[in-house]
Amino acid sequence: MENKELFSSYKDYVNKEISVKGWIKKSRESKNVGFLEINDGTFFENVQIIVNSNLENFKEIFSLGLYAAVEVTGVLVEPENAKQDFEIQANKISIINNSTKDYPLQNKRHTFEYLRTLPHLRMRTNAFNAVFRVRSELAYAIHKFFNERGFLYVHTPIITASDAEGAGEMFRVTTLDLNNLPKDDQGKVDNSKDFFGAESNLTVSGQLEAEGFVMAYSKVYTFGPTFRAENSNTPRHAAEFWMMEPEIAYCELKDVMNLAEDMVKYIVKHVLDKLPEEMKLFDSFVEKGLIDRLTKLVNSEFKHVTYTEAIDLLEKSGKKFEYPVEWGSDLQTEHERYLSEEVFNGPVFVTDYPKDFKSFYMKLNDDGKTVQAMDMLVPGVGELIGGSQREDNADKLLQMMEEKGIKKEDYEWYTNLRRFGGVPHGGFGLGFERMVMYVTGMKNIRDVIPYPRTVNSMKHS
Amino acid sequence: MENKELFSSYKDYVNKEISVKGWIKKSRESKNVGFLEINDGTFFENVQIIVNSNLENFKEIFSLGLYAAVEVTGVLVEPENAKQDFEIQANKISIINNSTKDYPLQNKRHTFEYLRTLPHLRMRTNAFNAVFRVRSELAYAIHKFFNERGFLYVHTPIITASDAEGAGEMFRVTTLDLNNLPKDDQGKVDNSKDFFGAESNLTVSGQLEAEGFVMAYSKVYTFGPTFRAENSNTPRHAAEFWMMEPEIAYCELKDVMNLAEDMVKYIVKHVLDKLPEEMKLFDSFVEKGLIDRLTKLVNSEFKHVTYTEAIDLLEKSGKKFEYPVEWGSDLQTEHERYLSEEVFNGPVFVTDYPKDFKSFYMKLNDDGKTVQAMDMLVPGVGELIGGSQREDNADKLLQMMEEKGIKKEDYEWYTNLRRFGGVPHGGFGLGFERMVMYVTGMKNIRDVIPYPRTVNSMKHS
Repeated sequence: MENKELFSSYKDYVNKEISVKGWIKKSRESKNVGFLEINDGTFFENVQIIVNSNLENFKEIFSLGLYAAVEVTGVLVEPENAKQDFEIQANKISIINNSTKDYPLQNKRHTFEYLRTLPHLRMRTNAFNAVFRVRSELAYAIHKFFNERGFLYVHTPIITASDAEGAGEMFRVTTLDLNNLPKDDQGKVDNSKDFFGAESNLTVSGQLEAEGFVMAYSKVYTFGPTFRAENSNTPRHAAEFWMMEPEIAYCELKDVMNLAEDMVKYIVKHVLDKLPEEMKLFDSFVEKGLIDRLTKLVNSEFKHVTYTEAIDLLEKSGKKFEYPVEWGSDLQTEHERYLSEEVFNGPVFVTDYPKDFKSFYMKLNDDGKTVQAMDMLVPGVGELIGGSQREDNADKLLQMMEEKGIKKEDYEWYTNLRRFGGVPHGGFGLGFERMVMYVTGMKNIRDVIPYPRTVNSMKHS
Repeated sequence: MENKELFSSYKDYVNKEISVKGWIKKSRESKNVGFLEINDGTFFENVQIIVNSNLENFKEIFSLGLYAAVEVTGVLVEPENAKQDFEIQANKISIINNSTKDYPLQNKRHTFEYLRTLPHLRMRTNAFNAVFRVRSELAYAIHKFFNERGFLYVHTPIITASDAEGAGEMFRVTTLDLNNLPKDDQGKVDNSKDFFGAESNLTVSGQLEAEGFVMAYSKVYTFGPTFRAENSNTPRHAAEFWMMEPEIAYCELKDVMNLAEDMVKYIVKHVLDKLPEEMKLFDSFVEKGLIDRLTKLVNSEFKHVTYTEAIDLLEKSGKKFEYPVEWGSDLQTEHERYLSEEVFNGPVFVTDYPKDFKSFYMKLNDDGKTVQAMDMLVPGVGELIGGSQREDNADKLLQMMEEKGIKKEDYEWYTNLRRFGGVPHGGFGLGFERMVMYVTGMKNIRDVIPYPRTVNSMKHS
């Protein structure tokens, strides 16, 4: 019987013989009795096994290495004065496989730094086990939320010729032999000889392609890997990460914000409901008060403020910031956290940013200076989500491309979406790892990605 | 009101005034009355609009281009002797956006070939609209199936140093300037100067990394993009496609086959239940008898046969095949289809293939010649799924790597999974596009991928 099933239905098995399998997470032997905690990974809590020393392979069992795998047959009992609800008195223990002496995880707390060197093993420890369970349930909650609301899930391409919003460095994808490159007349690399017949890169966003789909389905979302070749060795940067980008049509910016608010509440609530044991671990050992903070978020009403009002509030605050506050400059994390933590005491949307530091596809306001952008700021983190109404007027879009130095000819298909029945639409992007960090309290992006890819980090696992 | 909501609840609105938005899919004008069919993409069927010629902007409405977007306010009525259940008698029509004269989709049937040149628009046509709706629901059904069964969803890395099973050509990922490559002492490209400090590639499979996770959770699956740089311009090859790979522990090969059977039935049934209108289109216009074939699959019990028995059946069949039938050679599609269509008249698992043409990680049988591999063959297609029990003995795994010329030092972490409490485990892979093709009857992989990536195909959309 799987551990998860056992924990949910152990009452049916009291004083009955059952069989369970699992890896040995703890092992303790005393004179006449031994104790094992085993876990098959289907549920967070370990199953307690009591082993009487007269069991025929008692000595062998307690000489097994940590994480050896066993199958236990025994009687389930409800102990008095024990912290666990049930335990199993072993009648028979079969060894499925031992673990060798050089097994690198011992029964003590290892640092996250050390565990980062073992991406193929660290999910066997409690904290990482819980992180990746939360990651899995958050991903599922996203799919469930959008499917229930009739959104189409679209797999936008990973390999792309476009550089999306001109956002940051990209990874080149090639099948050319770097030690024997084909050259053109000018002695430059002949990209027409490459696999796709042109230079191609890894995507930084699926938004533009999703905008094609939203003009056929009205409600779509992407959820897949995206890439940035930024040479930044920080706790917040990874070269490969997952993004979720919904897009809706026949809408205004307020609809985009309502969608973002509903989605965040839905997926956080899903994890709180579904994984109470895991969330308790984070609340106890990673970030005190985490569950309160998330519960408050689920029950709060998100606030709204324009960028211009926000600058005013920051200027009047009298607080000394590291980065100066000035209309026309982007908000820094310290400003964002001050707004959500001190001013609004909860999540807040900041809207209508100056066009100068925002993307070319955002809808221009009538003032000609600001665009219909929105960022969702949350306590403890700052920006969690960024989105906008999209420019749906082809001429204004071309004008903004011109201003921002974007090659119009590369985006003809995109501009044409406005000419062929283009309707008001908008959407947002959620960096999925940022969400996992927000929900778990983990502070390093490397610790929420199964096998993280960061600068100078390539290993075989 | 969205079209989908309208279709499911129109009875509540009979003789009432409502508002709907949508793109004009059809437009027909006669003397005193005009007809529009509009659709906002939330539901497959169009909404019928009756426009009396005394409407003030009647002429303007019927001079709009195809796919112009409008908002209609009018009274919902149940017509007699009409094929649709309801229609709307317009009181007011506002134009949201027109479509220009050069809109490339006209109200006639375009060829799939022509539509492939318009990946940003083709989902506006009925067939492609239905294909991508099926794709979306199949993806959701996969997540739902595995989540309900307690599987962990793991995002295995896209950029990788390993070449997985040595399977086929890979795409190189680099940030090196190809026109100015750093060289080492021997004049070769210095890969240590690349972004990750080593040569890196796009993944061909997440299985090996998922095996790390299954040793912590017992039940996991991956679902994400994978890549093959195969220079094959066929209807079945794409350079970028999605793979779904579950992995289970404490299991035998029969458990892996049961899982595959349950999953295929579940996701096909999900689509049949959820998208009857779309499936009817495929049944009528793409593959006659499709719904019958799929319904039969859902209700059938899958058969089992060993490779050795299958070869025997093929040899005895008296049928003339293009490729010779011989113990030791892989089965070709013609053999696979013959087995599932003629011999078993339904889905069949072929198991225990010769080790020579199977992957190094498959568990060796006691005969020393065959491995515990399985392929699921289905009528009309041949192989839909391939999987295996994994070799869980470190020494036998190393021996097989030796035989197959796999660099052991690259897979030390993988071999160690066997040494550190490795338990019997197995899994399978489903090429997601193949599943979409199977369920829709579409015959070209380019027609089931939103923006397909094939050799020499890079476009800006």
